[in-house]
Amino acid sequence: MEFSIAQIATMLGGEVKGDASGKISMLAKIQDARKGQVAFLSNPKYEQFIYTTQASAVIVKKDFQPKKELETALILVDDPYSSFTVLLEEYHKLISFQKSGIEQPSYQSDTATTGKNIYRGAFSYIGSNVKIGDNVKIYPHVFIGDNTIVGNNTILHPNVKIYADSRIGNNCVIHAGTVIGSDGFGFAPQGDGTYKTIPQLGNVLIEDNVTIGANTVIDCATMFGDSTIIRQGVKLDNLIQIAHNVEVGKNTVIAAQTGISGSSKVGENSMIAGQVGIAGHLVLANRTQIGAQAGISKSVKEEGQQLLGYPAIDIKDYFRSYAVFKRLPELNDRLRELEKKMAGLVPSEADSGNA
Amino acid sequence: MEFSIAQIATMLGGEVKGDASGKISMLAKIQDARKGQVAFLSNPKYEQFIYTTQASAVIVKKDFQPKKELETALILVDDPYSSFTVLLEEYHKLISFQKSGIEQPSYQSDTATTGKNIYRGAFSYIGSNVKIGDNVKIYPHVFIGDNTIVGNNTILHPNVKIYADSRIGNNCVIHAGTVIGSDGFGFAPQGDGTYKTIPQLGNVLIEDNVTIGANTVIDCATMFGDSTIIRQGVKLDNLIQIAHNVEVGKNTVIAAQTGISGSSKVGENSMIAGQVGIAGHLVLANRTQIGAQAGISKSVKEEGQQLLGYPAIDIKDYFRSYAVFKRLPELNDRLRELEKKMAGLVPSEADSGNA
Amino acid sequence: MEFSIAQIATMLGGEVKGDASGKISMLAKIQDARKGQVAFLSNPKYEQFIYTTQASAVIVKKDFQPKKELETALILVDDPYSSFTVLLEEYHKLISFQKSGIEQPSYQSDTATTGKNIYRGAFSYIGSNVKIGDNVKIYPHVFIGDNTIVGNNTILHPNVKIYADSRIGNNCVIHAGTVIGSDGFGFAPQGDGTYKTIPQLGNVLIEDNVTIGANTVIDCATMFGDSTIIRQGVKLDNLIQIAHNVEVGKNTVIAAQTGISGSSKVGENSMIAGQVGIAGHLVLANRTQIGAQAGISKSVKEEGQQLLGYPAIDIKDYFRSYAVFKRLPELNDRLRELEKKMAGLVPSEADSGNA
Repeated sequence: MEFSIAQIATMLGGEVKGDASGKISMLAKIQDARKGQVAFLSNPKYEQFIYTTQASAVIVKKDFQPKKELETALILVDDPYSSFTVLLEEYHKLISFQKSGIEQPSYQSDTATTGKNIYRGAFSYIGSNVKIGDNVKIYPHVFIGDNTIVGNNTILHPNVKIYADSRIGNNCVIHAGTVIGSDGFGFAPQGDGTYKTIPQLGNVLIEDNVTIGANTVIDCATMFGDSTIIRQGVKLDNLIQIAHNVEVGKNTVIAAQTGISGSSKVGENSMIAGQVGIAGHLVLANRTQIGAQAGISKSVKEEGQQLLGYPAIDIKDYFRSYAVFKRLPELNDRLRELEKKMAGLVPSEADSGNA
Repeated sequence: MEFSIAQIATMLGGEVKGDASGKISMLAKIQDARKGQVAFLSNPKYEQFIYTTQASAVIVKKDFQPKKELETALILVDDPYSSFTVLLEEYHKLISFQKSGIEQPSYQSDTATTGKNIYRGAFSYIGSNVKIGDNVKIYPHVFIGDNTIVGNNTILHPNVKIYADSRIGNNCVIHAGTVIGSDGFGFAPQGDGTYKTIPQLGNVLIEDNVTIGANTVIDCATMFGDSTIIRQGVKLDNLIQIAHNVEVGKNTVIAAQTGISGSSKVGENSMIAGQVGIAGHLVLANRTQIGAQAGISKSVKEEGQQLLGYPAIDIKDYFRSYAVFKRLPELNDRLRELEKKMAGLVPSEADSGNA
Repeated sequence: MEFSIAQIATMLGGEVKGDASGKISMLAKIQDARKGQVAFLSNPKYEQFIYTTQASAVIVKKDFQPKKELETALILVDDPYSSFTVLLEEYHKLISFQKSGIEQPSYQSDTATTGKNIYRGAFSYIGSNVKIGDNVKIYPHVFIGDNTIVGNNTILHPNVKIYADSRIGNNCVIHAGTVIGSDGFGFAPQGDGTYKTIPQLGNVLIEDNVTIGANTVIDCATMFGDSTIIRQGVKLDNLIQIAHNVEVGKNTVIAAQTGISGSSKVGENSMIAGQVGIAGHLVLANRTQIGAQAGISKSVKEEGQQLLGYPAIDIKDYFRSYAVFKRLPELNDRLRELEKKMAGLVPSEADSGNA
């Protein structure tokens, strides 16, 4: 995985100024970069570093005019930041898709089909009627239950567990230990205090370009024909709980240890911080932003709200109230002081009764 | 898994009105049901749907009198809801116990014994002296440590990890990635700031009819002879933490991401919502109800209490205080206003000193 | 694993009083101990139990003078509690290092090397260029990614997943289902609302004597050459989230379900309770103590602080404010009462306008 500076410039549709033959094997920040690495300069605040950087090349704007002599080669492009993210993406693909071939022992049902160029790690398990797309990477100890479909270019890290009948899209990444399709938490209370299990017959549907962290759990929907749905572009962190029949709208980002209760729907392009709890059967508008550890107990109708607290309220209101909360003992003292003064001015009813 | 309507009626001790030969392969709600499915009608509010449903059969009360022509067959019973939950239960068993036989490679110690009709998935591991009952389903990647006993009809989903010496009852269901019997979190502080590990020598005891979600952790007890105990009929959701020496009373239900600290005892028939934290060495009375994200820092002596907040108080008191919390900045303003007015009426001590 | 009382006394540099030939196979508390067990007496409060205990031996202070006849043998030492923790430690090692040998099928790359006396359970996976030290115990279903290094005497319980390039020290214990080195949660927002994945190129570094519970997740650092670092002697409980580039200082203890966001640094000898959330890019001083469910949103500069609440404040201040919080409805009533009385004394502006 080594490229010449010229190759990288071609990849970005840019032009090289300086030695185009240097070799690049890694990306770095301009202030940290070493030989063999490429960095970028977008924010003028960082210009100072370009005169001292050890990077073999720096991606800069076409019209960049250096104020001093440069050691590093330049790659001239229209938008350095955007070009750098293109490189990050390419690099990510390169390192993600290194593995290929079949390691033994691994288990694949006779009725399962797999696409071209897949990696199937040792001790991985592919059940009956499973369909796996092209370029899929199945690390060791992955379990894929019967009838599941996995799209192209998806990466299942070690020990991902996918229950039967799940649907996983293209270009998804699921990290180690995550469970997809476990039973929803549904029990019918009986007269004697015990519970009967409500069979969970639905499945999980994960659309394209979804990333899911490690040891997260997504339960299947309750009724046959229904799905717990993670829409395209969603990014879920580690140790998240997604209950049965939840729907997470596209491009929504959710941080670690957050939990969403059954049948709630989270809108698109929302941002949910860590350790948030969302109650069941709620509908949250698009672009909702929820602060860490908040508890959402009501639906959110207006788009773009920012919420905090338990039960959550507008984040600014929460902080205003919390500022007073911190001074409550003082408030209490002031109130008592006033009461004392008032008692000196207004005779109490008992007093007036005596008068 | 297809039954005739006549077979289902027999199963429920009911009677068919209409075509008893139709085939049923699935259960559904009356408003959603399609051909090949059976629904039920219990609440009169839903009667309208029976005239338009595509269900092949609907379970109704014996004395049900249709007001219009019906397309669907009827199954007449004493209590439609209860009959439907019987069907759900039967269906659940059917789909849960489909798997059987031994997949290879899998690992079973010579000294382990297994009952009749078990499923042992590929890459599952059964240690020394393990005893497995009848009809047990052991999915791929399950680990069962030495000397563990698993009762009849229990289902261990992919990748369940059970440490040595555990006891798992009959009719239990444990979902993917859950860990039973990991070391309790016990360390003895030393003079130099380091910690010595306190060996965790007890085990975990799970009684009958317990269901546990995915990626939950139940630690073993500390001392030899002691157990962390999950009593019969308990239902635990995903990503729950049960520390060493905890006891969860029978028929108690606990939602996702809740944590119970060491040596605490939760009473019977309690309901604990998600993301709740319970401190160590507490005793919680039966039928305690705890709201989401609450923090329980004291024992609960009276049965049937409802708690919320951190530290948790009576749920109604919490909401009453929280209602005022949301208006704290206003309260603060009103208090300041009063102080100003009071200052106009009562000369301050400094003032009176000057007077 | 049975020792004579004489052997134990020798191990502790102590002296036996009574029958030194009795056999010991277990440790217990003095009030619970049975035949074949050894207990200790340090706190005089427990002296009563020494006259009735069934322990075969009790470890006591050299100058202990029994007030009655004793059934049990005594082991005389300088510091009974410290001697007992030595025994606990030895016992812990004994039970932890019982397993050895290679179970089949298991997978080890040709380029991996392993030390002396290791245990490699069935279905474990050791990738390319991995280096494993002496006495390491690798339980079934463990995954060790390429280029990882594991020190001596480390125990990896079933299903631990270690991504490529990780560094694990000596004498570490990692419990079942824990994930080391999953991708940090980093995504660059694009103009169209989607996110591009920022490749996570760093690793995880775990120093010596670290214990990690079950189903915990530690993400790798973002940039190549950087590490997420767990310093020596750290004890992490179950279901904890450690994000990319976090550093946990030595001998710090963290309870279950706590989460630390990206790039935060926790000082040495700190104690963090369960379900705590720590925001990103913070620095917490040494010996910080954080109460359960607290949310840390700012750096902590002064050592030894105790914090609670969200956002967290000094624990005593939190409890003082919370005490008033619980009485807020009453405060509100008292304020209204004062306003009424004040209105009787001071004509309102409207009133004065009318006057």
